[in-house]
Amino acid sequence: MGLFSKDITTLDDLFVHTLRDIYYAEKQIEKSLPKMVAKASNPELKAGFERHLGQTREHVRRLEQVFRMHGVAVKAIDCPAIDGILEEADEVSGEVDDKDVLDAALVASAQAVEHYEITRYGTLVAWAKQLGREDCASVLSQTLEEEKDTDRSLTRLAEAKVNLQAAQ
Amino acid sequence: MGLFSKDITTLDDLFVHTLRDIYYAEKQIEKSLPKMVAKASNPELKAGFERHLGQTREHVRRLEQVFRMHGVAVKAIDCPAIDGILEEADEVSGEVDDKDVLDAALVASAQAVEHYEITRYGTLVAWAKQLGREDCASVLSQTLEEEKDTDRSLTRLAEAKVNLQAAQ
Repeated sequence: MGLFSKDITTLDDLFVHTLRDIYYAEKQIEKSLPKMVAKASNPELKAGFERHLGQTREHVRRLEQVFRMHGVAVKAIDCPAIDGILEEADEVSGEVDDKDVLDAALVASAQAVEHYEITRYGTLVAWAKQLGREDCASVLSQTLEEEKDTDRSLTRLAEAKVNLQAAQ
Repeated sequence: MGLFSKDITTLDDLFVHTLRDIYYAEKQIEKSLPKMVAKASNPELKAGFERHLGQTREHVRRLEQVFRMHGVAVKAIDCPAIDGILEEADEVSGEVDDKDVLDAALVASAQAVEHYEITRYGTLVAWAKQLGREDCASVLSQTLEEEKDTDRSLTRLAEAKVNLQAAQ
């Protein structure tokens, strides 16, 4: 989609545009997760990020499946939102000088990423249904539920352990 | 917080840093909402954005209250995440050439903003409680609940009207 052009004229165009946006986002997340694994100290947090890296690879694969089901080219378009969220995550973690406080910051950053994915997949599922693409909606819903699960796991880990350690 | 300096050594520092991040974000959202009101065609969506502008001003006021309760300077720090989310919202809406599809894009963008706020306020409430600042947690929780309500209202409006119009 070119700058200054108005290429989106239908809900279907907008659906495909947003698929390409989240496809770019998932690939950026895939690149950033190994850095988060390296920075985390709490073993459960480290393992959680590693598990999520595996899931993210599966989410990329599922998006490629949806592109094919919908008959459009597998393509990523720049997504300034995820770039900003990941840039902020990097900046904040670079300013923290305590390993337990860093873990708390990493959880917060990861949850910002999860919420971005939750909102985008939520929208994509709704649009897929509106477009009569129940098949695409079903694949996208699987990822949506996994993102929600990851967010809930991070909350549980933060409240049960990470925040307590950080406050000591 | 300076670049390349490690100014965050405690959970309290991280809490204050994140308060200043969301304070900046709320002020950017306050600036962008009138543009969203102007772009929206559906009268309920337009009214919803106007109502949310009023709420956003109240959220800014509440954050100033929390800074004072916590005894720290009212200050904003750059938040690349919200800048990226708002930049993406602007880019996408600039590419849409149909007023009903534009409404669907505006709802999706607004929900991305809401989800960013939900994750940040959720984190701030948890950290305030961990720090023994139930008073701050209580004020921040009010905003958190309003952001969740706004997100739910947007989902309802999208599913009942905006997406249907956009698909016609």
